[in-house]
Amino acid sequence: MNINEMMKPYVIGLDLGGTNSVFGIVDSRGEIKATTAIKTQGYDKVEDYVDAAVEALKVIIDQVGGLGTIKAMGIGAPNGNFYTGTIEFAPNLSWGRTGIVPLADMFSKRLENTPVGLTNDANAAAIGEMTYGVARGMKNFIVLTLGTGVGSGIVVNGQMVYGSDGFAGELGHMIVRPHEGRMCGCGRKGCLEAYCSATGVARSAREFLKESDEPSLLRDINADDITALDVSIAAGKGDALANRVYDFTGKLLGEACANFMTFSSPEAFIFFGGLTKAGDLLMKPLVESYNETVLPIYKNKAKFLISGLEGSSAAVLGASAVGWEL
Amino acid sequence: MNINEMMKPYVIGLDLGGTNSVFGIVDSRGEIKATTAIKTQGYDKVEDYVDAAVEALKVIIDQVGGLGTIKAMGIGAPNGNFYTGTIEFAPNLSWGRTGIVPLADMFSKRLENTPVGLTNDANAAAIGEMTYGVARGMKNFIVLTLGTGVGSGIVVNGQMVYGSDGFAGELGHMIVRPHEGRMCGCGRKGCLEAYCSATGVARSAREFLKESDEPSLLRDINADDITALDVSIAAGKGDALANRVYDFTGKLLGEACANFMTFSSPEAFIFFGGLTKAGDLLMKPLVESYNETVLPIYKNKAKFLISGLEGSSAAVLGASAVGWEL
Repeated sequence: MNINEMMKPYVIGLDLGGTNSVFGIVDSRGEIKATTAIKTQGYDKVEDYVDAAVEALKVIIDQVGGLGTIKAMGIGAPNGNFYTGTIEFAPNLSWGRTGIVPLADMFSKRLENTPVGLTNDANAAAIGEMTYGVARGMKNFIVLTLGTGVGSGIVVNGQMVYGSDGFAGELGHMIVRPHEGRMCGCGRKGCLEAYCSATGVARSAREFLKESDEPSLLRDINADDITALDVSIAAGKGDALANRVYDFTGKLLGEACANFMTFSSPEAFIFFGGLTKAGDLLMKPLVESYNETVLPIYKNKAKFLISGLEGSSAAVLGASAVGWEL
Repeated sequence: MNINEMMKPYVIGLDLGGTNSVFGIVDSRGEIKATTAIKTQGYDKVEDYVDAAVEALKVIIDQVGGLGTIKAMGIGAPNGNFYTGTIEFAPNLSWGRTGIVPLADMFSKRLENTPVGLTNDANAAAIGEMTYGVARGMKNFIVLTLGTGVGSGIVVNGQMVYGSDGFAGELGHMIVRPHEGRMCGCGRKGCLEAYCSATGVARSAREFLKESDEPSLLRDINADDITALDVSIAAGKGDALANRVYDFTGKLLGEACANFMTFSSPEAFIFFGGLTKAGDLLMKPLVESYNETVLPIYKNKAKFLISGLEGSSAAVLGASAVGWEL
């Protein structure tokens, strides 16, 4: 621990989600010392959002001994650009939809010029894994966040891959089904996200139910209300159709990882987010299909790991780790 | 220029191909001062190959003032691993087919411990572009070598991507047609290389000819003898079928680049190798299909460039650049 860390032992992490903004004050071992939250929405202007955020933050900053103990702040946010510290055209943020919001700068100014770093949530997850999680000591790995969508954070030679514009690592939008692919939220067809997200799993279930009259526990649920969790519960009870949905999802994800391998040949793929709760239902077909489809030189090389960051605080830890990197 | 470069102004480049091994002695501006070559094949043992190589090399080393003027040697070779300086199970090399050959070490010992770096030919091409070519000053770009096969060299944050095992950057073996894909030389189906290499173009021509009775200049050639060059000559004469072959090839390559973009968001894609001689025949449909299929945030961002290294010496320059990097 250097003199700076001794005097400023904490970073602030902000997990800026579509609904909630969760703040944590974190030490270098990944222990969360204090936490608070505000709603992300309900502000017309970003200034009002930052006002509310700073007000809530001041309480927990005081709890840990004041701003003098804070080294930096890290933010994980949708459409976040690390190079510029801005959020760009984020469709799910009422105050960030139509332009470029210099959020890192705004927080820095309100916190007496504390350094503030900002990146997208999947990159924050990757930095979190490298700092506190299962990727400690790894130089080449890929984090895939499997939630409402599919995000990715890529580390090469021990560094985050931001690319020429700050928007590298959108593997959820790699087209994996060029032939008759599903419509994706991005307006294109066949993206990984349209299949291997939580919404993709629910969609597969609806498709599978429609294709046959095969009995399934999922028929007891209104088709439009089926969630990925419903599918994994049914699969856990031995429901054949639900199991096939996870086989299909895992197989596609395994094929995608085999393709990602040809890019950066990572030591590990690390899975993060809600869908990982399906456990072996997802991971078994994934690893099988990876080994079946990968180029022979890569066979049995990559590890397939579940995130080492703890449940609800994982995203805050990831965001805080962006602060240590500054 | 530092003192070391003043005293040792040259590097040796070795382009180790399946047929010929071409050596060049190169200065820091990419000027080739002396050159020689030997056959790659015809040696049962790698020791005999290295003997013949060093004998030929000594002549040109003397021409530039002796080994004291040589800073390092760089080798571009099939299945070359930068981390270990070895060639691993290279199917096309009589003395390298069945094992791991420590070629960098062998040359280093025979050249009085001159540092020797070795990587695969596509990575050498990428380092060459960064050192002497169109990628000077770029921190994020991808070189695609379009020859008998499709190779790739990826640069992220100004560094080569070698991955956890030294074998990153095999984009020619990304599966781009998971549905009814063509058989590839690697034993799998649907790889980019099966479509967008010189052999892939010839194969497309044969397929297109078979599918219809449409007249084509290519029907004057024995189907098995058709080459990518024949197809581009016919296309240049206005042959509709031949033009469609290049449209098809360019379209697939553009879609692949759109997918690669989601990984590292490079500033440029740089194309290298025989197939680039087709020029706009290939590049026009490539750029069009890229812009049609890429995720909107990447639209019109990447540049599409042809290699800046000169024809026959490009591979030697690339290899020599590996020496400067040591």
